[in-house]
Amino acid sequence: MDDKLMLMIPGPTPVPEQALLALAKHPIGHRSGEFSKIMAEVTENLKWLHQTQNDLLILTASGTGAMEAGIINFLSRGDRVLCGSNGKFGERWAEVAQAYGLQVDVISAEWGKPLDPEKFREQLEADTEKDIRAVILTHSETSTGVLNDLETINRYVKAHGEALMIVDAVTSLGAVNIPIDEWGIDVVASGSQKAYMIPPGLAFVAVSPKAWEAYKTSDLPRYYLDLGAYRKNAAKNTTPFTPPVNLFFALQVTLNMMKAEGLESIFARHHRLMAASRAAMKALNLPLLAPDEAASPAITAVSPPESLDAEKVRSVVKKKFDILLAGGQDHLKGKIFRIGHLGFVSDRDILTAVSSIEVALRELGYEGFTPGSGVAAAARVLAES
Amino acid sequence: MDDKLMLMIPGPTPVPEQALLALAKHPIGHRSGEFSKIMAEVTENLKWLHQTQNDLLILTASGTGAMEAGIINFLSRGDRVLCGSNGKFGERWAEVAQAYGLQVDVISAEWGKPLDPEKFREQLEADTEKDIRAVILTHSETSTGVLNDLETINRYVKAHGEALMIVDAVTSLGAVNIPIDEWGIDVVASGSQKAYMIPPGLAFVAVSPKAWEAYKTSDLPRYYLDLGAYRKNAAKNTTPFTPPVNLFFALQVTLNMMKAEGLESIFARHHRLMAASRAAMKALNLPLLAPDEAASPAITAVSPPESLDAEKVRSVVKKKFDILLAGGQDHLKGKIFRIGHLGFVSDRDILTAVSSIEVALRELGYEGFTPGSGVAAAARVLAES
Repeated sequence: MDDKLMLMIPGPTPVPEQALLALAKHPIGHRSGEFSKIMAEVTENLKWLHQTQNDLLILTASGTGAMEAGIINFLSRGDRVLCGSNGKFGERWAEVAQAYGLQVDVISAEWGKPLDPEKFREQLEADTEKDIRAVILTHSETSTGVLNDLETINRYVKAHGEALMIVDAVTSLGAVNIPIDEWGIDVVASGSQKAYMIPPGLAFVAVSPKAWEAYKTSDLPRYYLDLGAYRKNAAKNTTPFTPPVNLFFALQVTLNMMKAEGLESIFARHHRLMAASRAAMKALNLPLLAPDEAASPAITAVSPPESLDAEKVRSVVKKKFDILLAGGQDHLKGKIFRIGHLGFVSDRDILTAVSSIEVALRELGYEGFTPGSGVAAAARVLAES
Repeated sequence: MDDKLMLMIPGPTPVPEQALLALAKHPIGHRSGEFSKIMAEVTENLKWLHQTQNDLLILTASGTGAMEAGIINFLSRGDRVLCGSNGKFGERWAEVAQAYGLQVDVISAEWGKPLDPEKFREQLEADTEKDIRAVILTHSETSTGVLNDLETINRYVKAHGEALMIVDAVTSLGAVNIPIDEWGIDVVASGSQKAYMIPPGLAFVAVSPKAWEAYKTSDLPRYYLDLGAYRKNAAKNTTPFTPPVNLFFALQVTLNMMKAEGLESIFARHHRLMAASRAAMKALNLPLLAPDEAASPAITAVSPPESLDAEKVRSVVKKKFDILLAGGQDHLKGKIFRIGHLGFVSDRDILTAVSSIEVALRELGYEGFTPGSGVAAAARVLAES
């Protein structure tokens, strides 16, 4: 059946009808007063969502573009940085840092396990010369469904005093509490196709005054990703390069939806969707990749036993029910499936996904579960929270 | 009146209804077979539009991102390049090249005048050591409405034999004939909000085998704009980073519209719109910034006499008729207005714009014209071509 697709991947995420209709509006001039008015409103609401008074810059790019900008604007060739790496995106930031000639110390953990904050503490405390210029990490590791302990690691960064805290919050911003100003996080990057509930194409970077200090001496080459140009233009409610005006129309709509829902409710909803998904998978005797204490509210990665082919689960759920689950990436390809519950996702969607997965398990002859137990477990969480 | 805006700026350009409706479709997964199918079709049609069998890469970026990628992937620190500069965008590419530590020789012309191909010939012929690595220029200079003589300059680059020809075709690709393979142009960058008839957010780079040879030794740092990653993924009909899937839906639609119209007809239409606009402005005794022999088919820049305030013309046309004309940029701010006739623009739109400008002239007390003469001149061109 056409047009029945249900997205349960960690991005692109589903888009509400009123945002889709906003996308279909005729474009307007990006140097017009009308556009500046939209940009002013959107920027103010983004600051609300980021819980910050820092500069909030909007780029035409994928999340990777924003994260690269977050790294290359505030560091210099040869600078020492610590990169957390416990999944595809953590690995990517180490690659970006290396591509620009930074001296990268990688602190890694197995894919599916959280980064150990104590390893960051040790290196930061050992750095009495204060030559670590930045700590770079992925908050919610999309590839594994692990939420790293940003709060604790950031506390150690603050104790170090010199290093910048640079965070990929692509699948956490707007899904889990990140009080940027309260915690003093310097650079936070994210992308539109996640909790923002609009299609891909826009990316966001929040930048602290301390990061702008570092910008003054940064010597890495850049032009399109030079955040100084974005800051200068943002002060006049405009952009240095032509922005995707239609995505701004949609973002204007969804940010107002988010304000109406409220930050606390948004975070509670994501937590509830995560808890229900995890309870369901456990009830179905399907092992979860991430431990409970480090579970991302955006995505649940399921690592089925050898007897059950993760790709076949995805395939049946797609063919029979038109629900798109995500697969594994890199060495986890074929070994896991991932349930995205990020952005415009409701309690109902979790029941739908879990019951569809149950049908797939039955069709694939998986005998390790009691039919109905997954839905019942999810229902219990949803009823009680 | 709401919703009556008519865009006559050089981008964003008007978007056809069927493309707007495609934008409003629910997003799909970018790693799905469905998306790969769209990407394959879109890429093939882009190659048709570019008249090339070279790699055609699609970036999530403004046109500037594509042009920066076109420069930094094929050159190395210290490389000598010739940059043509006769407007805002020519100046920008010299800035990009300088930001990456290239040795930039600027060949300039006054804003509103075309670049002199002979100056390129002289420098290229004098370079017996063959250390000029690239010639970089803007084909249609959006800021002035000048079309530079790419064909001749490219011929001199070919005669040099070593240098790459890198072209900003942002407002010329799809509006004027650029037979990439026939002329042997190495790198051609453009953006979606121009002749492509969709909103901003996608950018395109065509890359020749000779440019890929240079890529192998290029040492400039890059990650998000690393075209090698786009090429590798394009071979599998995918992208290295999440693409703006909704813009792809729209592009799929407009490329099919362009195929139905045919390249020759598209080029003839843009030429006709330009000729009609210029004839009308001349009839109104409004001087044109670009000379006839170097007029861009995308945009006509009008430089009114001192007695007539260009910004007031724009303002009246906007307030009374809801037509958005472009103003001047940088030192031409306030001194010119620009009529965009690029992309989804018809003969009818030119009549509308010219007659609206006539009303503005009358309202502003400009006495140097005979009412009706602009429309009559445009009508003559449209009737005869």
